Amino acid sequence: MNAQQAASKGESTRELILDSAYELARGDGLEGLSIGLLAKQVGMSKSGVFAHFGSREDLQLAVLEAGRRRFLDQVLAPAVKLPRGLARLRAVVHNWFEWVHHYESGCVLLAAASEYDGKNGALHDAVVYQQAGWRESMTRTVGYAIASGELPASTDAEQVAFEIHALALALHQDAGLFGYEGAIRRARLGIDRLLGPAP
Amino acid sequence: MNAQQAASKGESTRELILDSAYELARGDGLEGLSIGLLAKQVGMSKSGVFAHFGSREDLQLAVLEAGRRRFLDQVLAPAVKLPRGLARLRAVVHNWFEWVHHYESGCVLLAAASEYDGKNGALHDAVVYQQAGWRESMTRTVGYAIASGELPASTDAEQVAFEIHALALALHQDAGLFGYEGAIRRARLGIDRLLGPAP
Repeated sequence: MNAQQAASKGESTRELILDSAYELARGDGLEGLSIGLLAKQVGMSKSGVFAHFGSREDLQLAVLEAGRRRFLDQVLAPAVKLPRGLARLRAVVHNWFEWVHHYESGCVLLAAASEYDGKNGALHDAVVYQQAGWRESMTRTVGYAIASGELPASTDAEQVAFEIHALALALHQDAGLFGYEGAIRRARLGIDRLLGPAP
Repeated sequence: MNAQQAASKGESTRELILDSAYELARGDGLEGLSIGLLAKQVGMSKSGVFAHFGSREDLQLAVLEAGRRRFLDQVLAPAVKLPRGLARLRAVVHNWFEWVHHYESGCVLLAAASEYDGKNGALHDAVVYQQAGWRESMTRTVGYAIASGELPASTDAEQVAFEIHALALALHQDAGLFGYEGAIRRARLGIDRLLGPAP
């Protein structure tokens, strides 16, 4: 194996560990992530896992970052192919609600927001950075729909972004407790009240 | 000590354990509740704790029920002194947002909704029962403000209850991540958009 092959193998092993860690964290949260269980799942020793991630915290940060990338790939990336405006905003909301449906049984990013909101440290900072970034992105997307004239000029973009976020949280909770069908109907009605009836 | 004194002492020891368990669960969730740590905090042996609660699950259920009573005492009870209508609805929302502020660093009921939404068992059932009961209560409270003519007759009470819940969830998350001041301003603007400007 030459140097390039070795680097590539290291990279793919890292991705494999990260995928398994992500799935484990969906059930038990990042705080509940067991390195022993993870090592077993990927067929390595604990020290083998730590060879790819310097520390437990580094691994948790990497899982969080993997979640962020996955979220942006699934929720934002397909929508930004649409021109700036209401259709793009609606597409982001649609994809976000699909994401909630897919990760109904446990979302690493949402769980992390609860796990680390009151704690200090690198994970708290990463969660705040991540959530603030997403809110800014939503506010910008709402802003484009104001600029295009599809939402009234008096619209408070940050407020609309906050309320979309609120509906996504309630969708997640209601879907988990009472079922997705009723919850998505309520969430969509809330969106219609915010953005006007869907076309 | 006669039988009545003994019963009363047993009751107050039970309450003491419950209070400590509630505080521990605020930080670590009901799943993370350590009986060893709890026993240490109340100065008893583990078996002493189990003498008051048959099992770990019985204790978790009792903590959940204690949380529910506390929530209703603080959020609903003061508001129902007001006549049925918009003022009572606004008072419930106000008290709820105060509750969120007080339990910003961790709310047992909210954590339980995440911990048990995807799981089967007695705790899941208790959380669903509790959350469904609270939603019904909110829907009824909104209904009174429709009946009094203060909200339009066309108002969908269940939808308004869902959206108030959504704003409370977003308030909790934003307050934890970005601070209460900005979050409460956003949540109140959302309520004004739902119920009309505050008097």
